[in-house]
Amino acid sequence: MNFNIMTLFPDMFDSFKNTSIIGRAINDGLISVNTIDFRQYADNKYMHVDDYPYGGGAGMVIQPHPVVECFRDITKDMDKKPRVIYLTPQGKVFKQEDAIELAKEENLIFLCGHYEGIDERALELIVTDYYSIGDYVLTGGELPSMVMIDAIARNIDGVLNNKASTEFESFCDNLLEYPQYTRPPVYEGMEVPEVLLSGHHANIEKWRREKSIERTLERRPDLLDEANLSKKEIEYLNKLKNK
Amino acid sequence: MNFNIMTLFPDMFDSFKNTSIIGRAINDGLISVNTIDFRQYADNKYMHVDDYPYGGGAGMVIQPHPVVECFRDITKDMDKKPRVIYLTPQGKVFKQEDAIELAKEENLIFLCGHYEGIDERALELIVTDYYSIGDYVLTGGELPSMVMIDAIARNIDGVLNNKASTEFESFCDNLLEYPQYTRPPVYEGMEVPEVLLSGHHANIEKWRREKSIERTLERRPDLLDEANLSKKEIEYLNKLKNK
Repeated sequence: MNFNIMTLFPDMFDSFKNTSIIGRAINDGLISVNTIDFRQYADNKYMHVDDYPYGGGAGMVIQPHPVVECFRDITKDMDKKPRVIYLTPQGKVFKQEDAIELAKEENLIFLCGHYEGIDERALELIVTDYYSIGDYVLTGGELPSMVMIDAIARNIDGVLNNKASTEFESFCDNLLEYPQYTRPPVYEGMEVPEVLLSGHHANIEKWRREKSIERTLERRPDLLDEANLSKKEIEYLNKLKNK
Repeated sequence: MNFNIMTLFPDMFDSFKNTSIIGRAINDGLISVNTIDFRQYADNKYMHVDDYPYGGGAGMVIQPHPVVECFRDITKDMDKKPRVIYLTPQGKVFKQEDAIELAKEENLIFLCGHYEGIDERALELIVTDYYSIGDYVLTGGELPSMVMIDAIARNIDGVLNNKASTEFESFCDNLLEYPQYTRPPVYEGMEVPEVLLSGHHANIEKWRREKSIERTLERRPDLLDEANLSKKEIEYLNKLKNK
């Protein structure tokens, strides 16, 4: 998978590219992360890429020309036009299922806005997917691109060493994860739950599922509607609800 | 505001600290962003901070000792224990209203997990707030911390030059933003909507509100339940719905 990022701030990605999992995936040739500064496609000698919004209002708007020309340059040798993701609070809220689906693409382009956004005509010409990573306002599309790339890359074959680990922490069964404990068995007087030290796998599994159900009910009851629960687990959930 | 970040990967924050708005806020003394590598609080000569999970399962779990000792060191000279935010898919979903509220704190601590998480006892001892930035799986708490810090910092007085700009793009009225246009008036045959060139402020305002309503209905109808609409706008929305 080639991740291409159109941004006015390519330096923001430097640390990200050296990160544990992303850095290793790049070194292993599983992914590439290319940042392209679209300022170089400005059509004026001052290299300005933004101007005042028509109709007035605060802030500056990015002009269509540099964005569209940058896109044409990136895609000129590609057989198939790749999906272009524009990060915006106006987008569809990004979820784990989108990460899994997008991981199947060969090329992806991320377009990072700044200021008051990008001229609508450029977006109409090139953007295929509008995504938001959540309902909060950020300075630009750079951090949300990194968030999406991290989430997507983890679903590309070979990127994670430990296959079991992805399945484990996933949202697929729509339950939050159970609490985790490691050594020492007693820390400042606080003991690890006995069942975890018992070696009794069926009991451990049961305890963990119950804790997951408890937590999901307590913290994210909205997820339970789509959770995969056995009959016994539904009974357990109903008992909890009645408390 | 002092942002303190407990992480095993402090380098990941290097580019972020030099970013436009965050970098300027640090230089202006409005915020500080301190990263603390809690590996230095390991209690063994190999500087290991993680171990196998009790009860079995994939991945490694971070031990309680280095986390708790790091926290004690950061807070030892603080009069009041600050809020400690743990980034986890198990957390409350972070929203713009949380960013506004958290911007009022003097100190905040972000705890970044990795691997299969952190021993539950450490979390019980120090964490006050569990947050998730969205329903997707990420490699660690570093990117979500940056996302939260960016969103929070923008709500601290003086961080944004242009006060109007924050209000503008906010989610406060629960409508998505209208499309933006800038020069040229005709780009590759695509014209800027005439009303925006008219100079008629009331018409421009009306057009923008209507576009916001259209977009919100199309892309995020869930937001409309809490939107602030005038009687006329409610009529307009109902007309759209009937189409």
